[in-house]
Amino acid sequence: MPRKIVIVGANAAGVHAANAARKTDPKAEITLVDREPYPAYSRCGIPYVLAGEIPSFEVLTAFPPTHYRMMKFKLRLETKARSINPDDKIVLIEDKEGNFEALKYESLILATGADPFIIPIGGHNLPGVFAMRTVDDGKGIQEAMKTAKSAVVIGAGFIGLETAHALASNKIETTIVEVVPYILPALFDEDMADYTEEKMKEHGVKAMVGRRVEAIVGKDKAEGVVVGGEEVKADIVVMAAGIRPRTDLIRGLGVELGVTRAIRVNPRMETSVSGIFAAGDCVESQSSITGLPCLYQLGTNAVRQGTTAGINAAGGYAANPRVICSAVSRIFDFELGAVGLSEFQAAKVGFQTISASITGRTRAAYFPGGKEVKVKIIAEPVLGRVMGAQIVGGENVAQRVNMLSVAIQKEMTALELSTADTSYAPPVAETVEPVATAAEIVAKKIRRRR
Amino acid sequence: MPRKIVIVGANAAGVHAANAARKTDPKAEITLVDREPYPAYSRCGIPYVLAGEIPSFEVLTAFPPTHYRMMKFKLRLETKARSINPDDKIVLIEDKEGNFEALKYESLILATGADPFIIPIGGHNLPGVFAMRTVDDGKGIQEAMKTAKSAVVIGAGFIGLETAHALASNKIETTIVEVVPYILPALFDEDMADYTEEKMKEHGVKAMVGRRVEAIVGKDKAEGVVVGGEEVKADIVVMAAGIRPRTDLIRGLGVELGVTRAIRVNPRMETSVSGIFAAGDCVESQSSITGLPCLYQLGTNAVRQGTTAGINAAGGYAANPRVICSAVSRIFDFELGAVGLSEFQAAKVGFQTISASITGRTRAAYFPGGKEVKVKIIAEPVLGRVMGAQIVGGENVAQRVNMLSVAIQKEMTALELSTADTSYAPPVAETVEPVATAAEIVAKKIRRRR
Repeated sequence: MPRKIVIVGANAAGVHAANAARKTDPKAEITLVDREPYPAYSRCGIPYVLAGEIPSFEVLTAFPPTHYRMMKFKLRLETKARSINPDDKIVLIEDKEGNFEALKYESLILATGADPFIIPIGGHNLPGVFAMRTVDDGKGIQEAMKTAKSAVVIGAGFIGLETAHALASNKIETTIVEVVPYILPALFDEDMADYTEEKMKEHGVKAMVGRRVEAIVGKDKAEGVVVGGEEVKADIVVMAAGIRPRTDLIRGLGVELGVTRAIRVNPRMETSVSGIFAAGDCVESQSSITGLPCLYQLGTNAVRQGTTAGINAAGGYAANPRVICSAVSRIFDFELGAVGLSEFQAAKVGFQTISASITGRTRAAYFPGGKEVKVKIIAEPVLGRVMGAQIVGGENVAQRVNMLSVAIQKEMTALELSTADTSYAPPVAETVEPVATAAEIVAKKIRRRR
Repeated sequence: MPRKIVIVGANAAGVHAANAARKTDPKAEITLVDREPYPAYSRCGIPYVLAGEIPSFEVLTAFPPTHYRMMKFKLRLETKARSINPDDKIVLIEDKEGNFEALKYESLILATGADPFIIPIGGHNLPGVFAMRTVDDGKGIQEAMKTAKSAVVIGAGFIGLETAHALASNKIETTIVEVVPYILPALFDEDMADYTEEKMKEHGVKAMVGRRVEAIVGKDKAEGVVVGGEEVKADIVVMAAGIRPRTDLIRGLGVELGVTRAIRVNPRMETSVSGIFAAGDCVESQSSITGLPCLYQLGTNAVRQGTTAGINAAGGYAANPRVICSAVSRIFDFELGAVGLSEFQAAKVGFQTISASITGRTRAAYFPGGKEVKVKIIAEPVLGRVMGAQIVGGENVAQRVNMLSVAIQKEMTALELSTADTSYAPPVAETVEPVATAAEIVAKKIRRRR
């Protein structure tokens, strides 16, 4: 009898789990269930379709239909997993016609993802209020943009900023409202956030920070939001206030959640219930810097976790490394990157930090087309280890984040990083890499402190 | 009495030595002597001026004249250091009018650089034959390009390729001749070299590899070169066959040279003669991978070595880390990067290697403007450590080189690198970083071998 593997959720984590399971067990019967009408697609691309930088939603499709056939996956779209019976190892599913079916499994992988958090304020159900999570969200916003003159984005994380970028690129007057006193609070410290806010302002996006949206107002559709008693016009309101792990399916089954309210898994991505694995935005990770549980809902993590879950679910062995959290985005003409802990996050778990930030160039000063890049390096002062970095620049931010991710992974000190043997050529880099310069200042501050 | 510091050579190493010496000893009397008529400039920028990407040679000037005044440096241009008397600590200099002067020093820094190696073949003195080292070389080539229809570049290192890029960008039919059977022999292995050669060919540059130039022919000026009996037309011939450390000034003084024929220095950049320091293209480095002496004549090394020499020459303490050799360039629409050892170099010093190369994209597959990037990772099979990498891509190569440089510095294994927590966003990176994928293949090969 072939091993039966059921995967709930057919996006980044789910399909990578399926791929890995297939490689591990060529004979397994692998079923993917997803409530959306589309097979796996790149959520991260949606804002760029809206901005007009990607031609259509269709190109976001991660794998062609032939992939599912070739891999012999059973793909059940527009189908909901309704409940799980872990004793009999059965998932009850319901298709769009309302037909129920009981799927037997030996291994179950929960790749249920996350739901955008819809703040339950007045007017949140009005037409013109959107989340930014699915292709259907994207299509709704795309339609609304045709007539909209103004928009408010609630929440200034990467998704919020990318949404603002998309709206402003369509000449829609856009305001971001963030309840924390600075933008990107989960990734940046206030200094780098303020620098980013200035750059966004140059592109016409206004930020209202340290402010709460009290209500969405409008007759038959959204017309504005109320922020501190003041009304801000908005034909479109996008809720980008974070996402919450989708765990309703496992309520009462004994599958434990962690402190982050996401599913707790062991290094093999197995939950507290044997035979049930989980991966992607619904699971909790462990920080390699603090050792503590954390929730970094990134595509990269989803792919790695999915792969690990798939291998183990198919009878193989794989274990997932702990995470550092490397994140990058691009809006307008600049990139934003963060890796490791911010000073705020470090302080929250009890670390002192020493930091420095400097502004350099991405090419030799005289080379046309060079862009500004601002780098902040954060280190712990006793051992001197790099704990995090924040980077904003006109180009080449993602690979700087990767360089720092490797540095953190190998527990590099700021002093070691300051001596990094970096590369240089006038059209592509400065003689002295800004990352090394920032690290040097941090190392000097640490030395002075000792 | 202020400390007297004389620096022979006022380019990257020399001026950075002067800057560091000034910071270390604000009262020192610092004299910079250089035979060229220009104060420190970026040699690396010269090919890009010729290619028309940088507006003029003037912008290559590293520091404005005010810098030298502000730092209270005595700058003696068009002045040659003729001899050194280490017993009396005197440098004899000669200005362009033929006036001699004896400069007393407490510390002497040799930043004499290197000379292009002019292959002593017939016709090497003909007009139309150039080196590619100084602004005057650049100006000569610029003038010759006005009427030239064809060119031959001898030597396929970065300088040779950048020169070919400049010539071809001016619609001059350009051929590179390389004596080794593949281009970039000091940086790349044959596989990556062949890939690069193909890309150059797309831009109209022909390479003749494994071929020696036997003579340069022409009546009053260069008209062609003879390669294996065959004549190749060339109104311009550029010798880019490497550079040789300039050490004539120290002959007979007891300043030891190393096996690379460059000046041997200790970690403080002091030569075997007390009080005489050296930095830049004239000094030998030590590889942090092999522990062996090596000669990596890069601007980055010059700046670091100059800074260290300057601090020590002024009575401070600084020590230079060993080097990894991170190099990057950009020609036409692609970048070339190398770090650490090639497989060929590793084999030469006795290492076995396992390598893998893969081709990825610089952005999500669906994101317009993404470029191809080919990554080769090389590791030693017993400990599994990454020893080197070679990268060719349409963008973001320099920072990938830096990521790998940090990985090598911290003795990362291919397996560890394969789990690197890299960043992703559709406009700036792929979900799975090609560097990590290549490392994963290497790690698998190593595992299979064990």
